[in-house]
This record gives sequence, structure tokens and C-alpha cells, in this order.
Amino acid sequence: MDSNFKFLAQVTNPLDLHKFSDKELHEVAREVREAILKYVSQTGGHFSSNLGTVELTVALYAAYSIPPDKVVWDTGHQAYPHKMLTGRLDRFPTLRKHKGLSGFLKRDESEFDVFGAGHAGTAISAALGFAAARDQLGTKEKIVAITGDAAICSGMSWEALNHAGDLGTDLTVVLNDNRMSIAPNVGAMKNYLARLRSRPSLQHLAQSAKHAVEKLPDPVTRVAAGIRHGITHYLAPEETGTIFEEMGLEYIGPVDGHDLDVLLDVFRNVRELSGPVFVHALTVKGKGYDASEEDSRKWHGVAPFDLEAAELTKSPGAITYTQAFGNAAEECAAADDKVVAITAAMPDGTGLNGFAKKFPDRYYDVGIAEQHAVTFAAGLAAGGIKPFCAIYSTFLQRGFDQVLHDVCIQNLPVRFFMDRAGLVGDDGPTHHGAFDISFLSFIPNMVLIAPRDTTELAEMTRFMKDYDAHPIAMRYPRGTGDDRLPESRSAIQFPRAEILREGTDVLLAAVGSMVSPAFEAAALLEKQGISAAVMNARFLKPIDTETTVNWAKAVKLVLTVEENVQRGGYGEAVRDALTEAGVKTPVDIACIPDAFIEHGAQPIIRDQIGLSAAKLAERVLNKLGKRAVVDLN
Amino acid sequence: MDSNFKFLAQVTNPLDLHKFSDKELHEVAREVREAILKYVSQTGGHFSSNLGTVELTVALYAAYSIPPDKVVWDTGHQAYPHKMLTGRLDRFPTLRKHKGLSGFLKRDESEFDVFGAGHAGTAISAALGFAAARDQLGTKEKIVAITGDAAICSGMSWEALNHAGDLGTDLTVVLNDNRMSIAPNVGAMKNYLARLRSRPSLQHLAQSAKHAVEKLPDPVTRVAAGIRHGITHYLAPEETGTIFEEMGLEYIGPVDGHDLDVLLDVFRNVRELSGPVFVHALTVKGKGYDASEEDSRKWHGVAPFDLEAAELTKSPGAITYTQAFGNAAEECAAADDKVVAITAAMPDGTGLNGFAKKFPDRYYDVGIAEQHAVTFAAGLAAGGIKPFCAIYSTFLQRGFDQVLHDVCIQNLPVRFFMDRAGLVGDDGPTHHGAFDISFLSFIPNMVLIAPRDTTELAEMTRFMKDYDAHPIAMRYPRGTGDDRLPESRSAIQFPRAEILREGTDVLLAAVGSMVSPAFEAAALLEKQGISAAVMNARFLKPIDTETTVNWAKAVKLVLTVEENVQRGGYGEAVRDALTEAGVKTPVDIACIPDAFIEHGAQPIIRDQIGLSAAKLAERVLNKLGKRAVVDLN
Repeated sequence: MDSNFKFLAQVTNPLDLHKFSDKELHEVAREVREAILKYVSQTGGHFSSNLGTVELTVALYAAYSIPPDKVVWDTGHQAYPHKMLTGRLDRFPTLRKHKGLSGFLKRDESEFDVFGAGHAGTAISAALGFAAARDQLGTKEKIVAITGDAAICSGMSWEALNHAGDLGTDLTVVLNDNRMSIAPNVGAMKNYLARLRSRPSLQHLAQSAKHAVEKLPDPVTRVAAGIRHGITHYLAPEETGTIFEEMGLEYIGPVDGHDLDVLLDVFRNVRELSGPVFVHALTVKGKGYDASEEDSRKWHGVAPFDLEAAELTKSPGAITYTQAFGNAAEECAAADDKVVAITAAMPDGTGLNGFAKKFPDRYYDVGIAEQHAVTFAAGLAAGGIKPFCAIYSTFLQRGFDQVLHDVCIQNLPVRFFMDRAGLVGDDGPTHHGAFDISFLSFIPNMVLIAPRDTTELAEMTRFMKDYDAHPIAMRYPRGTGDDRLPESRSAIQFPRAEILREGTDVLLAAVGSMVSPAFEAAALLEKQGISAAVMNARFLKPIDTETTVNWAKAVKLVLTVEENVQRGGYGEAVRDALTEAGVKTPVDIACIPDAFIEHGAQPIIRDQIGLSAAKLAERVLNKLGKRAVVDLN
Repeated sequence: MDSNFKFLAQVTNPLDLHKFSDKELHEVAREVREAILKYVSQTGGHFSSNLGTVELTVALYAAYSIPPDKVVWDTGHQAYPHKMLTGRLDRFPTLRKHKGLSGFLKRDESEFDVFGAGHAGTAISAALGFAAARDQLGTKEKIVAITGDAAICSGMSWEALNHAGDLGTDLTVVLNDNRMSIAPNVGAMKNYLARLRSRPSLQHLAQSAKHAVEKLPDPVTRVAAGIRHGITHYLAPEETGTIFEEMGLEYIGPVDGHDLDVLLDVFRNVRELSGPVFVHALTVKGKGYDASEEDSRKWHGVAPFDLEAAELTKSPGAITYTQAFGNAAEECAAADDKVVAITAAMPDGTGLNGFAKKFPDRYYDVGIAEQHAVTFAAGLAAGGIKPFCAIYSTFLQRGFDQVLHDVCIQNLPVRFFMDRAGLVGDDGPTHHGAFDISFLSFIPNMVLIAPRDTTELAEMTRFMKDYDAHPIAMRYPRGTGDDRLPESRSAIQFPRAEILREGTDVLLAAVGSMVSPAFEAAALLEKQGISAAVMNARFLKPIDTETTVNWAKAVKLVLTVEENVQRGGYGEAVRDALTEAGVKTPVDIACIPDAFIEHGAQPIIRDQIGLSAAKLAERVLNKLGKRAVVDLN
């Protein structure tokens, strides 16, 4: 335990906070902020969002009784203070490292992580589930959901509020409103919240309201009345009926999310209220560290940095797939004025920043609303426009029904760009794009492709711009491209694969990010006296049956390689194609196993699950019944 | 063309409505209602919802200029009046029949079906896409979305409103508020809408507002001012700030959705407004037919009936899978007080009506909110309760990310019950459950099962109640069970298949609804001198590798049979298992083809795609290179 953190070191359980005076809780909060600065500058991780929730977390955890009370965090990348107050301070040096502390909440990691997350908008639904379970079991604990101003715009948050208001059971929903989320917030809700924020801040009114109700006899009645009538309804005349009140929740706010005394007061009172209560707290992303307060978006997720210098170093070298897509999209928009771009609150993450600046009228950020993003794109396509819909692989899961029901049934030419396909590394299982080949390939009409490097990504983006026959999706990984592959290139042609290397013993049929390790494995195999052909699949749905069958016939073994699970993946498609063509060459499938993969650096995980060049070469040797004659590594 | 419909017969295009006087439009509306009564009583179909939209559609189509204006209907089962006004009156005798008129909107069917649907909540997103496309192309047509009071509660409607309010472009959203949807509406929104409805109805105020603005000079200013200031803001003091106004839409309402003159007035004025406008119309489901006005839920979707007698005949005979599930769920709830049931607005469709009556405190109808339903269930499971989450196969696509991210990553024992798995018949491609094996099997931790008949469904439901190790889903078809199968039964045991019949030439490995035709096919094959074993798969993820491998070794051919597409389906899992066990017996896969299947009666479609007993037997003969020695049919 770090001896610098005198108070924090005494907290292994949030109930420990109850033994501190309010004055000492200020020290706890100070230490939490110091610990975030210290550790995240060393390990990297989510930065500004966690600096914004320090006081909120300390106050909430001091006011509630945890356990048995439960707090459900939305998304979870703002829950480092929560982790520090639940016995995990000493594990922070391992943050987001392989086998280390997760960057998100995880039920496996701590009993206090009552519900994990990673995708936004789930907290209110899950918390309402806990509240309903409590009611069924007849226990009395309090349930809190903490959500953000971007997450509250997601459809499922609205669905959950609608149900919470109707059910009427005890539930506290805290809105951590930092007016930012990852990128500047969008949508009508933004304007609405701004109007609420313009109300006089709660703390200035709290005093007068308090005096008025202190005369009431029973303490519970007093605090309840104090909050309800003295505060909420005191503010009501200025702006009658907030959306949240209209949905049946008691609205408290806005409160200063960094004023610990006010927060303690509010949460101690709110805990005594019954029914669904909505607490609106205003926080500042990056609070307490000048550079990140100034540009919280830049400091959202960081690599290790020098705390004194306060400068983020950009990793030099090859361009990322993200940048390559951004550039290609801008080029396509310049060439064709029917091209528009859509993001669901990820302009930075998807590489569309430049597009937004150059083509502001052809750029749509719809907020964390993947369902709407997809059907909005379908409407645009039906209206004669070419929508480039850029959504991360796992986030597109949110729009799955819309892809199937609105885009594919109607065969509308929406172009999907799925960054973060394959293993993403540090963010872990909620973000690994391990499933998109599976969840898109079985949908009739869908075309799915994957580039072997950033140059091919640009080429494929141009191909997609002109491809109107079907909906089409491209998957590409997090990280930089690879320059180990031959520069000779053939044009993208539906549904043709590309043969990168000829060979007579084995065909390595690889998808996107796996083409490079497959190519390297072929070189390793050559040293073992094995002649390996390498095929860049390019088209995953439909696959290039003709090329695959022809090459498969000429070898003893086909090894397919993909960063996707086996069921519904590319390997099974190859197996089907050969079976149906009557080709007997066995097909072995190298892929992500049928399990959720933990976080950790991409190269470590890829090697661990057998997707490194050396492991692939070894697998071929084993399958062919040969022994290595030269060391494989 | 039906000569009874004098006015309607003159309308092949909504622009034809412009030539009628308002008085004649009343006749058009009368004829539309008469046509619905006449045709739906003959063919069956959606009934009460279409009687509710007669005046709304006639007024809207008379007021707008279609084309070029576009109307996007949500869900689409209330769009028969739309079909009648767009040149399809004479096709109504073929409604929902194979190769006949679709019961929903379809882009392939008419240029006026600008965007198809089937699942609820998509209209505002799609319409906003059309509006954005119009703005990109610089044209001027008006775009209208018509949604319902249940669909507006779905998350994606909220996401779309949030974006529409922010974008600020011309768009009319019409809320067809029949206070019912399919089942009585739920959620806080219901209460909110009820408050809005309690305002004095627009038409009584419209007159006075009109007089006040009639003095204004310019006609457009006048109508705009008349609507905006005279009407909306005239009402404002009574209930400031509706949710829709707070989201940035101009709110007009409520208006009587059956008063044609008022509707014509409102829509003619609204068409001239700029920016996003929200029109709230109150309608009555089943309007104009006494029996359906009284019990619109019973009359939601009907089989052919006698118009005079006004009685719906229930088809006698075997119980449906839906009823069997309802009974089994009640039995489980009686046996275990931790069992609760969740539906997303389908208490009738899922068979949970009886459960709701017997266990009202353990029953949750969350509205059309599948995303929330799933994560709410995950919260309940994490809280120690056993949630039975009953959602149709294709509707669960809406909760796909939640199944993966909230349930399966955390390995929470939520029990999913997927009715309408496989071909549903008349509802067509948006409702065919052709994909659930594919979209669930690749998810780590998920267990997926399917019963061969209603008795096994009950047995499996009991098994699921006690199965806590993993999330588990059961798929079962629309319709009645089947009593052709042997009554001898083995207990459900993870992950064991059931051998129903032994054989030495071929193994028919069948899933759920396909066990019965496979069993019948085996009998047909016996007559051809072919000995067929029949396996009831029971477990689809994981499959029973041991039993499958052992039986596959002993035959010359394995034929898998499933009502699901091939990619990611059961057949591929069997192929994988045999390949990986080194078994060379070829696996042939009978399944739904890689295409969206049109509507039509289940037996017709099943036979057409090769899933009838005769077609299966024929397939086996072909694969074994034999000719039929006896007629197969």
C-alpha cells in the first residue's frame, strides 16, 4: 500500500468512509485525485473523466452504505475513484496491463463491481433490475445508477427511465454532467441540459431551503421535505417540469459536482427519499489538472506521460487504420458530393475529425445512438445519398437489428466502416471486435470486406464509395498498418481474393489484420522446407469460392486465419465452400477461441491465442505431422 | 377494381385526392373503412389498427403532395389505408397470402412504400434520413413520419427525436396515439401522454385562434402564425413545455384523429411550417366497428371472420408453442418464487397473459424496449432472481448488444424464450426468425436449445428454471406442436441430443420444428429401402459432439435440418465437430437459403425451400445417388 495516501490507505471497503469526519473526507478526495494523477501518468488510461468524478464518488460512497447498497456505473471508464475506494489502490500500477487491473468495471474483479460495462447507456436498466430484485427478495438496500450526459441520450437509457418512472420503486439516478463525454455532446438533449444548468446552482438555494424546513419535527420527514419541497419545487417556477420529472422521477439539481460538502448533504438526504430520484451533478472533465481541464478531449484516454511537463507524446511511425480511413473518407467526399459521414459520438475515435472540419454540412454526429445512426443512414441511402457510417465493431452490435431490418432487408447501399475489429488490447472484452464477421456474414445482401493494410483500406474505401449493389461493411483493426507485405497490388474486384505468395504444401487464407502474420509464417515455414501459399481473403461475405477452391485443391492443408471467433466466421465459410465443391483438403481454423478475451497488449494476446506468425507456423507443422528443423522464433 | 368503391376507385396516386372537395374526401374515408371491413374479414390481417388510421391517412394524403412528399410509416401494420390510396385496392383479396400483398410496407411493392418496416420505432430515424438526403440534394419535398404511442417509447425513437431537434430541418412527426398499441401501453410515457390528452382538444380552440390570425396579411404567415401562436402557445400556459417541445420540436395537439375536417386543416397548415413539427393525433383502435372498438386487443390481428356476426373463431386442436410456454412459465413460477417474467409489450404474443394475472408482482411489461428488457433481466439475475425474458426471435435482434455485453460477458443466468423462431408465415421477412441460431451461437457462455414439440418445450422450460451455470435461450416456432413423434421421452440433460430412431445409411440431425419432418422423411426413406437414423439435436450451442460423432461414424451421410440460415447455424456446427474429430462422413445442410424469405403460409414456404418431409427424403436420395423406387409424396 502506498504510504503517501494516509487516508485512502485506510479504506478497503466504502463503509470505512463512515468513520471519517467531513473534513477528513476532503483529504480522502484530495488523495484520490493525487492517486489518479500519479498512477495514470505512469500507466496511461482514462484520465479526464476520472478526475471529474472524484468528489462525486467520495460523497456518494460516504453517504450510502456500501454494502449492502449498490452502485452501478455506466460505461465504467470514470470509475477509477470507485476502484480506489473498494480496496484496489495498490493494484493501480497494473492498470490495463495484461492480467492487471481492468480499465472498466468487472464482476470478476471485485464484489463492489456489481455490474460491468464498457458500452454506454446500460446503468439505469441494470440498476432498475437490481432494484426489482431487491423488491422481489424483500430486502432494503439502496440502488444507485451513475450515468453521463452522453450516455443518457442513448435509446436504452430512455427506455429504462420510462420503465423506472412507471415502476416507481426506490432508485437513485445520478447524472454526471460534464458537458462533454468523449467529444462535445450533440443532440437536442445537450440544449435541454444547458437550460437546466442555467438555473441557479443548488447550493446557493440549499441554505435558505434548509432553514425553512429545519423546524419540522421528524428528521426523515424534514430531510425529505427539505429536498423535495424546499429545493426541487423551490426551483420549479423557473422552469416547470423537467423531462425527468415528466418521466416520473424526482429531479434534484443541478448541484456542483466538485463541492464535496454540498454533495454529502444532497446524497445523505437523497438516500432517505423513496421512489425514483434523479440527481443532476455538474462536473468538469480533467478537474484539478490544468492541461486536462483545458482540453479534456485530448486527455480522455492517455498513454503514460510526464506529470510535470503535462505534454502528451504522440507515437510516431506508421499511420493508424483510423487515420487512413479519415483521409480516404475525405478524399471520397471531395470526389463525390453525395458522400456524407455519420458517427455515433466518436469523431476522434473513427478518424472523422478532419471530415467534420472540411465538410461540416455533410457530417452527422448523432450522439451515442447507434440504432438511430444505422436507420438514419438507411434513410439517407434510400434518399439517394452515399452514407459512410463509421461505428466501431462492438458498438455496431447496438445497431444490429437496424443493419438487418432497415438496411439489409431493403438492400440499401449503406457503407459501414468498423474500426476496432479484432483484439483492441487494453480496453478488454467489451471492446474486442471478435464477432463482427459472425454477426454480419449470415445477413442476406450484406457484403463484408477487410483490408490487409492501410493502403488497401484506402483502396477499399474508394471501392465502397462506388459500390451501390448492396450494403457493404469493412472491418479493420485498432493500431497501425504494417509494411512487411509486398507492395505489388491488384485492384479490388468483387468478390476476388488476392494471392500474395504461391506455394504447394499449405494455403494460408488470412483475413485483414492476419494477412501480415500469415505472410510472415509462410517465410518461417519456408525455412522448415514447407511451401506455403498466402491468400489475402479481402471478401469475407461472399468469399471468393473460385480462388479458394482452386488453390485448396493444389495443397495438402488449408489454414484460415482471422481475428474473429470460429462460429459464423471466415474459416467456416471456407470449410463450407470446399465441402460443397467436393474438395477433400482439410481446413484448419486459427481464430479467437469461444471465450471472452481479457485485456492486454495486442501482441501478447495474439500470441497467447495462437495468432502470431510463430504460432501459426507451428500449427501448420503439427497439422502436417512435421517437426521444426529450425527454431521457429 | 371493386365497383362498390366509387371514389376510391379513382385514386391510384395520392395526388388524385387533390381533385376531390372536402365533402368528397369524407366519402373517400368512408369507402376506405368499408374496404378494410370487407377485405380483412375475408382474408384476415391486422384489423383494429387500420380502422384507427383511416381519417388520418386520408387527411394527410390530401393535404400533402405525394409524390414528391414522402410518408414513412412506423411498423407498417396500420398502413392498409395507405395501400388503398396508392393503387393497391384491387390487390387486397391477396393480402398476406403467398405472392400476394404484404401486410407491411415494402419498397419492392410500391414506389409509395418509401421505407419498409415491421419492427417498431424506426420511422423517425428513416424519415430524418430522407430529410437530410433532401437537404443534401437541395430539393424541397416534405417528409412525414407516422409513429405510434408504443413505438415512441422505443429507444431508437428517442435517439431520433434527439437528433431531429438538434438538426432542426423540416420534418413532420405524427404521433398516432391510440392509447393501446397491441397491448395496453406501459411506461411513464403513458402517463405523460395521458396528461397531454387531458388538454382541451385542439379543434375546440382552433376556431377562436383562427379568427385571431385571419387578419394577418400574407397567407403563409397567417397559417404559420395561426398554428404556432394561436394554437400551440395558446395551449402552452396550461401545461408548459411538453417533452417534445423541450426536444426542439413544435408540438401541435392533441387533435381528434377521426375528425377529418380538423385533420385536413391541421395538415394543410403544418405542411407550410418549417423545422421539426410534432403532431399528436388521438385515434381509436378499431374505430367504426363496434366489436373491435370494444376490444381492440382481441381484434388486433385476425383470421377471416363473419362481418355480421362479429365473432372471432379460435382455431381448435393442438395447443400452440406460445400457450405451452405460458403454461410452463406459470408452473415454474408457482414452484419457485424467484421466477419472474419480462415481456417487451407482447403479453398476448408471448403467452404471458395468464402469468400476468396470476403473478402480477412478478411480471414486468417494459414496453417496446428490448434493449432495456435484456439489461433489466441481467440486473435481476445479478440480484439473485431468475428472469424469464420472453422476446420473439427477430425482436431479440434489438437487444443483441445487451445479450452479448450485459448478459454473456458477465455470464448471468438470464433465461430467454424466443417464440417465432423459424418461418412465421404471413408476417414475412421482418418477422421470420431465420437468424437466431446464428446470432446467439457464436457468443461465448450462451447456451441455446430447441424443443421438438410442445411437451418438450415444457420440459425444457423446467430445465431452464434450474439451469444457473450460463445464460440460456430456447427457440420455438409459431404455431402448434406436432403429435407425430414418438411419445417415449428421455430427460433433458446438458448437452445431450436425443436419438429418436436408429438407422445405418443416413443420420438426419434436426433442430426443433424440423424434427418432425425429419422423422417423417425417415419413414419415407424406409419405403425406398434406406435406413435413416433421426436425432433431435436439443442443444444447438454447445452441440452434443459425442452423440453426433458416434452416429455420424456409422452412416454414409449426415443431413442436418434447421429453420435457420446456413452461416453460423447448426449445420456448420455439426460440420465443425466432425471435421475436428476427423470423421469423414459428409455433412449436407438443409436450411433457409441466404435470402430474405417472402410471406406466405408456413407449409408452402417450407416446402418451397426444401424443408418438407418429401423434399428432405428426396435430398437424401440424391446425395446417396439413388432413385426413388416409390413415389415420395
